[in-house]
Amino acid sequence: MADTIRFGIVGFGNIGSGVVDVFTRNRAVINARVPRPLELVRLADKDLTTPRPVEVPPGVEFTDDADRVLRGDDIDIVIELVGGLSPARQFVETALRAGKHVVTANKALLADCGAELFTLAAKSDVSLLFEAAVGGGIPIIRTLQQGLTANSLTSVRGILNGTCNYILSRMAAEGSKFKDVLQDAQRLGYAEPDPTFDVEGYDTAHKIAILASLAFGQDIRFSDVFVEGITRVRADDLALAAEQGCAVKLLAIARRDAPDAPVEVRVHPVLLPRMSPLGGVDGVLNAVEVVGDAVGPIVLIGAGAGLAPTASAVLSDVMNLAQQMVDGGAPLDRRLKIPVGKRSVQPMRKIALRHCLSLSLLDRPDAQSRVRSALEAESVTVDREVIRGHREGEYLNLALFTDAAPEANVQAAINAISELDVNAEPPSVLRREEM
Amino acid sequence: MADTIRFGIVGFGNIGSGVVDVFTRNRAVINARVPRPLELVRLADKDLTTPRPVEVPPGVEFTDDADRVLRGDDIDIVIELVGGLSPARQFVETALRAGKHVVTANKALLADCGAELFTLAAKSDVSLLFEAAVGGGIPIIRTLQQGLTANSLTSVRGILNGTCNYILSRMAAEGSKFKDVLQDAQRLGYAEPDPTFDVEGYDTAHKIAILASLAFGQDIRFSDVFVEGITRVRADDLALAAEQGCAVKLLAIARRDAPDAPVEVRVHPVLLPRMSPLGGVDGVLNAVEVVGDAVGPIVLIGAGAGLAPTASAVLSDVMNLAQQMVDGGAPLDRRLKIPVGKRSVQPMRKIALRHCLSLSLLDRPDAQSRVRSALEAESVTVDREVIRGHREGEYLNLALFTDAAPEANVQAAINAISELDVNAEPPSVLRREEM
Repeated sequence: MADTIRFGIVGFGNIGSGVVDVFTRNRAVINARVPRPLELVRLADKDLTTPRPVEVPPGVEFTDDADRVLRGDDIDIVIELVGGLSPARQFVETALRAGKHVVTANKALLADCGAELFTLAAKSDVSLLFEAAVGGGIPIIRTLQQGLTANSLTSVRGILNGTCNYILSRMAAEGSKFKDVLQDAQRLGYAEPDPTFDVEGYDTAHKIAILASLAFGQDIRFSDVFVEGITRVRADDLALAAEQGCAVKLLAIARRDAPDAPVEVRVHPVLLPRMSPLGGVDGVLNAVEVVGDAVGPIVLIGAGAGLAPTASAVLSDVMNLAQQMVDGGAPLDRRLKIPVGKRSVQPMRKIALRHCLSLSLLDRPDAQSRVRSALEAESVTVDREVIRGHREGEYLNLALFTDAAPEANVQAAINAISELDVNAEPPSVLRREEM
Repeated sequence: MADTIRFGIVGFGNIGSGVVDVFTRNRAVINARVPRPLELVRLADKDLTTPRPVEVPPGVEFTDDADRVLRGDDIDIVIELVGGLSPARQFVETALRAGKHVVTANKALLADCGAELFTLAAKSDVSLLFEAAVGGGIPIIRTLQQGLTANSLTSVRGILNGTCNYILSRMAAEGSKFKDVLQDAQRLGYAEPDPTFDVEGYDTAHKIAILASLAFGQDIRFSDVFVEGITRVRADDLALAAEQGCAVKLLAIARRDAPDAPVEVRVHPVLLPRMSPLGGVDGVLNAVEVVGDAVGPIVLIGAGAGLAPTASAVLSDVMNLAQQMVDGGAPLDRRLKIPVGKRSVQPMRKIALRHCLSLSLLDRPDAQSRVRSALEAESVTVDREVIRGHREGEYLNLALFTDAAPEANVQAAINAISELDVNAEPPSVLRREEM
């Protein structure tokens, strides 16, 4: 065996540069905490010419031949930072088949075919670690796999996308519109030129699929997740939230009522109390709440993205693998198993949720009664009503807080209300979440 | 080797009952996550007669002979829940010498002689785990030992005592006095009949000594920690905090400016922004913020005490030991080492902090200038002044926000101000903490 544990990186973009930077900077701290020194041997990227935020360190090979990392005889651990499904999946499979441990930050890959990859890793007697795939630098995977293992978990909820949280926080602070804040966020680099993956909630959905799989021991995939992004959130929704001491957050929610009950897995904007651990998390921060039957709720908050926080998570995985390689011991990734093909997911339409309907009605005698009838027709009852504004003979602005009702009924009622000729503005609806 | 991993518990009080209860309740979940089933073999307590919250499970021996747990041939793991220094230290030493792994929730013991116990454990080739010693169910030890290992840590700050946080939260919500809330907390069971250990900050100081040791790799002990409790916090301090958008919290702080700089370790009430991850944590909850050079700030929030949360942490340690015993592998407790005798602690008087002085002065022409002179004499400068109340010819209530100044100077200035004959009420002072 070599004197060092040797690792290589495929995908030398921003995150790759972050890993190289943090490893170089903290090499002394890192190597004091592992049984044998870590050594970065090789970087691979198809693009050899674009300048990177960091230099290729002296003695490290930089190649456009990914195989030299994935199958290199002098490589023990492969870090996959290519992202996306293809060729990342082939890369990870090649490395696992070649007997390399793999560390990845690729949430899309894990949410698409994680169970297959874990099976392949087990067959090849190597590990696939992925702390950086969810929550950036927040050690949420380790917390689920090790810290809370004595619990039967009942829910995992999180603010898992920094771009969305940044946009919603600024909309709340400034009273601005989604579109305007998005443009500014793009200018500042907080949102991608094509923001779809973030603002439509897909990134968040990938992450909650992974967390739900770990928490409930089921093979929950991206395609199992109900997803609604933040593009339809209005400035007025945030104003209403503030009036109620609440915030609007894009929340990922995985929950089950009992160990044998089907799992709810959904991503959508919610109204939640401002003075709650998740309701107060603003800007690009991420936050995750895990509820266990013994421990109760545990909340973790931290940088959910960014080069150095992600590198912190990637390198903690590499360090754990170094320990495991030298001492033997159980692979972390097998402590909470994701069994292939086992899933029981509750369809969104059957989930009973509480809502807040924001209505701007024409000030006509029949307006309210017709809204009430539309709700009653779907058995949706109203718990509390707030008059937000009224101009005699012109408009009446109302917020209706409903009791819990199946999503199918609520959506049917809202569609019916939208069709009424009593609306001054189209109705808006937010699901409510208790903390 | 036996078919099961067998553990025993010394100290069958409240926490012991919690461990028995959660283990019994979640046995199926727990045993599905360890490579060989766990078996509770024996409970020991000097008191065999007082009724417990749970029954002794069938087949489990209950004895008043601690040695039958500590040295039992049929025991692999000993859980020490006796608490305090004696006989807990002898119990832990006996078990380690007998080759048993030990899990403890005993923060006092670790903050007093942790380094010696870890040395003994290493010599006996067994592990000493202690997730439950700090933060109850919050997996803060695991986070330091595994999640953030690629970082050079710069600070650990926490609300680590639920009793103090409950009292301060209620004082803030109700405008009540410390003494009144304490009495009520005792009646409700949130404070002990003798509350000294909690309200004087000793419990918090034990915990931060442990966290500082892990974070900075130094042998920081309880006796190294500057401690000031909450007994002198006034109702008006909380009112002032609220006026400033702040909260008063008993904060434990361990910080160093650079890897080779001396460590600050202190526990005292602080003024911190209400809309910050720690400033919004109310009631019996605990919260810890860890700052790493790569990851930035990470915050963990959860139940810091209570039977089931503590049991969650104790059992996660037992499960990790089970894994380690079956697979070999590196003991968790050796990943971040606490080297015996290595410490470099900054004395409190040298630490430069910002303060908030709350003064109620007689409304005399010379009052303010004499206060200013007292501050100037100690080179304490004022950054901001707020007039909180004024009655012509009677009193002038001021809040002075100072720039950072060494603690020795600030305390000398406050003593000098206290001596002046211009005070309508004795001055009060709170240290300020940025988040």
